[in-house]
Amino acid sequence: MATRNATIPQATRMFDGNMDKSDVWSIFTPANVPPNCINLGQGFMNWSPPDWIREKAHASMDSDVMSNHYSHPRGRPRLIKALSKHYSPQFPNIVARGEDLKPEEIVVTAGANCGTYAALVAHCEPGDEVILFEPFFDQYFASIHFQHAKPVYVPLHPPTGDGVKSGADWKIDFDELRKAFSPKTKAIIVNTPHNPVGKVFSRDELEKIAQLCIEFNVLCLADEVYDCMVYDGLEHVRIASLPGMWERTLTIGSGGKSFACTGWRVGWLIGHPTLVGATLAAHSRLVFCTNSPLQEATAIGLEGAEEHNFFPDQLRAYEERRDILCSYFDELGLSYTRPEGSYFLLVDMDPIKIPESFETPSFCTEGGRGKDFAMCWWLAQDIGVVGIPPSEFYCKEHEKIGERFARFAFCKDPELLHAAGKRLLRLKEYIDPARVVPSKRKVNGTNGV
Amino acid sequence: MATRNATIPQATRMFDGNMDKSDVWSIFTPANVPPNCINLGQGFMNWSPPDWIREKAHASMDSDVMSNHYSHPRGRPRLIKALSKHYSPQFPNIVARGEDLKPEEIVVTAGANCGTYAALVAHCEPGDEVILFEPFFDQYFASIHFQHAKPVYVPLHPPTGDGVKSGADWKIDFDELRKAFSPKTKAIIVNTPHNPVGKVFSRDELEKIAQLCIEFNVLCLADEVYDCMVYDGLEHVRIASLPGMWERTLTIGSGGKSFACTGWRVGWLIGHPTLVGATLAAHSRLVFCTNSPLQEATAIGLEGAEEHNFFPDQLRAYEERRDILCSYFDELGLSYTRPEGSYFLLVDMDPIKIPESFETPSFCTEGGRGKDFAMCWWLAQDIGVVGIPPSEFYCKEHEKIGERFARFAFCKDPELLHAAGKRLLRLKEYIDPARVVPSKRKVNGTNGV
Repeated sequence: MATRNATIPQATRMFDGNMDKSDVWSIFTPANVPPNCINLGQGFMNWSPPDWIREKAHASMDSDVMSNHYSHPRGRPRLIKALSKHYSPQFPNIVARGEDLKPEEIVVTAGANCGTYAALVAHCEPGDEVILFEPFFDQYFASIHFQHAKPVYVPLHPPTGDGVKSGADWKIDFDELRKAFSPKTKAIIVNTPHNPVGKVFSRDELEKIAQLCIEFNVLCLADEVYDCMVYDGLEHVRIASLPGMWERTLTIGSGGKSFACTGWRVGWLIGHPTLVGATLAAHSRLVFCTNSPLQEATAIGLEGAEEHNFFPDQLRAYEERRDILCSYFDELGLSYTRPEGSYFLLVDMDPIKIPESFETPSFCTEGGRGKDFAMCWWLAQDIGVVGIPPSEFYCKEHEKIGERFARFAFCKDPELLHAAGKRLLRLKEYIDPARVVPSKRKVNGTNGV
Repeated sequence: MATRNATIPQATRMFDGNMDKSDVWSIFTPANVPPNCINLGQGFMNWSPPDWIREKAHASMDSDVMSNHYSHPRGRPRLIKALSKHYSPQFPNIVARGEDLKPEEIVVTAGANCGTYAALVAHCEPGDEVILFEPFFDQYFASIHFQHAKPVYVPLHPPTGDGVKSGADWKIDFDELRKAFSPKTKAIIVNTPHNPVGKVFSRDELEKIAQLCIEFNVLCLADEVYDCMVYDGLEHVRIASLPGMWERTLTIGSGGKSFACTGWRVGWLIGHPTLVGATLAAHSRLVFCTNSPLQEATAIGLEGAEEHNFFPDQLRAYEERRDILCSYFDELGLSYTRPEGSYFLLVDMDPIKIPESFETPSFCTEGGRGKDFAMCWWLAQDIGVVGIPPSEFYCKEHEKIGERFARFAFCKDPELLHAAGKRLLRLKEYIDPARVVPSKRKVNGTNGV
C-alpha cells in the first residue's frame, strides 16, 4: 500500500479507487484468518498441474540451456506453435480462413494480468475511457487508472427474488451500456466466463456488445481466462470471432487457469497483428519477456493435452466440484447463481444475520465498505470458511448492488469442498427462516447431513 | 512495434524515442544474422544455473502444491528470508543498526526490469523528470516515458586517446549533473556496475550523487543487478548505505544475473518500507505476483550459495572470461574499457574501416542511427560475431558520443569466447595501422595466434 507524506512523494494515482485501503486479498489472506480456516477465497487450486507436465518441464530445464534464459519477447516459439494449434479451431473465423493463427497473432505475457495491463498501456491515452461490467475483476481498475484513463462502470443487474439462479439471470441493460459509450471510449473489457458471477455471456449479448464496439470503434479486451471451464455443454462464444470483431478484439487466455498452476504466470493474448504487435511492444517494456521454464512447461501441457484427455477430464472434475459446493447451499436453502462457467460461486447472503455480539473490525468498515466485508469476516472467524466480499468489484456508487453476495471458489478438491460445506451447514441457525429456499437437490455425497 | 493508422488508434507514447523503430535486440536477434554467427550481443549466459539448484527446485515443485500457485505479491516468504540473509551484511547501514532487513524492506518482482518499472509507476507524476546517465540500459526510457514522465540525460564522458582504459576514465561532469536536477526531478537511476561501460562507480562519485539526491529530495533507483560481478577486488559501494540515502534509495537486484538464469524473471528491490510498499502496490497491479516455482529456485540458490562457494567461484570464472575476451582486443591493438564490473566489454571500433563494397541495409541507417549500427551489422555478416551498437543507449542529441563503440558480452564459456576471439582477429586487416595500440598482453590461451 502506498503511504501519504512519504519522504519521496508517491504518485497520486496510487491513492485512488480502493487502492488507498487494504485490498480484499490482504484482508482475507490466510495470515489474517484463523489457522484452520478453509480457504475458498482466492481462486487457486489445492492441487498441482499434472505429473506428465512437470516431469517433461524439469527435463527441458535440465537439458536445454535456453530454457533458463531470455525468451523472445513475443514468447517461446514452441509455446506460440502450441497455442496456435490449440486455439485455431476455437475461432470460427480462423477456421473459415483456412490458415491457423500466425505467430504475429499471438503474444505470451507474464500472466493474463500483465497482458491486460500491457494492452491498455499500448492503447490508452490519458482521458480515454474503458468500459467495465460490474462486478469486475479488481485488477482492471489499476490497469486502466494507471494509464490516466477512466473506468466507466456498467452493472450486470442481479436476479431478483430467492431461488437458484443462472448466469443468464444477470442482465445487461443495453440502453445503459449504449449510454456508457462515448467518443472517449477506447476499450471495453468483456469477461466471459465471468468472475465472480459465473455467467457465460450469450451469443445474443455478445452480438449486441460487438455492434456497439464497431459503431464506436472500440477495442474489445475479451478476458476469457476461464475458457476451459464452461459447464453443461453450454456454448462459449468468442467475441473475437463475430463479424467485424477480429480486428478490434484481443482475446486473453491463462496458462495458470488452464493447467492449475496460477503461480506460473504465463498468459497470452490472441488477435489481429496490429493489436498484438502494439501489446507486445508495451509488454516487452514492462517485463522484457515472460519466464522461460514455465513457458516450456505450458507448451508441454498444450502439446500433451489431447493424449491425456486433459481438458475434458478437468472439465468434468470442475463440474463435480461445482455441484458439491452448490449442494450445501441447496441444503441450506440459500439462493445462489449456479455457475455456467469459471470456478466461482456467488451466494446471496442476505438472509443471514450476523450475531449481534460479533465485533466487526474497523478495516471491514473503513471508507464505508459494503456490508459483505463484515459478513465474510464473520464467516471466516465463526464458521471457518473464507469467502470474498464482491463489493470490492464495484465502483463506490454501485457497491450496494453487490454487497448482499459472497464469492466462494470451488477450484478445490472434493474433500476440502465437503469439509467446507459441512462447516457452512452451521449457517442454518443464522438464516431468516422466511427466506429459506425449498431444496430440490440432495446434498451430494453427504446423504443430506 | 506499434503501428500508426491502426483500426484502433494506438497510444502516442508508443511512437516516441526509439520505440517507433526496430529496436537493437530485434535487429541483432539470432534469427537475423548468419546462422553460424557467435552471439556476444544480448547478455545471457550459454550455460544453465547449477544442478544443485535445479534439482531441489524440481523437488519443491513436485512436493509442494503451493510452489505452483500464487505467491504473496511481496514475494515468497522463503525467498524474502534468503534475500534478507544474503543482503543484510552488504549494507553497512543495516549491519550498523544490528537488525537484518525486514520483510517490509524487500519486494520480489517479475525481473529487475518490472521492478524498476513498478517503482516508477509508484512515484512518477506526469511531467516529472528522471535523470539517466548515458549510455543507459535501453528499457529505462519506456519505464519513464510510459508514466508520461521525462528522461533527462547526463552523459558519462568517454576516455580520450587510444589505449586500454578503465571505468574510472568515464567521467561524470558534476556541473552538468547538477544542472540536470530541477524541482521537477523525481528520480535518478544509478547503474553500478554499469551496463555497457563496465564502470563501477567510485565512493566519491556516489557521495556526490547522493548529495544532489538529498538536496533535491530525489528518489535514487540503484540498479545494481551486476553486483555479483565486481572484479579485481574493487569495492562495490551501495549508494543506499551512504548517509541520508536509505530512505530515498531502492536497490535493485536480479536472480537471473546472480545465478545465470536470465529467463527465470525473478528480481527484487530493497529499501525503506515506504519506498518498497509503494513499489509493491504498483507491482501487484502490473503482474499480481512473481512466478512461484522460480522464486523457490532462487531461494534455494541463495540458501546454498555459501556451501557451494558459488559466488566467489562464479566471480573468478567471470574474471577469466573477461580476460580471455580482452586478450584478443589487446592482440588486435584496439582500445577498450577494461570492465571493472558487469559482463560487458566496450570496444572502440573507430580505427576499423568497413570495406567500401559492403552494403549497409536501410534498417541500420533509418532515422539517422549511429554509425555503430552499420559497424555491428558488418561485424555479424563478415566477421561472424554479434556485438551491440551502444548508440541505442543514448538520446538522439548525444548518440554521437557512443557511436564509435561496440558492446560485447563475455557471459559465455571460454571455448565460445576463444572461438569469437579468433574470428575477431580477422579485424586486423581493417584497422588503421596508425591507430593500433601496442599490445602489452599475450593472448590468453592462444599463444598469441
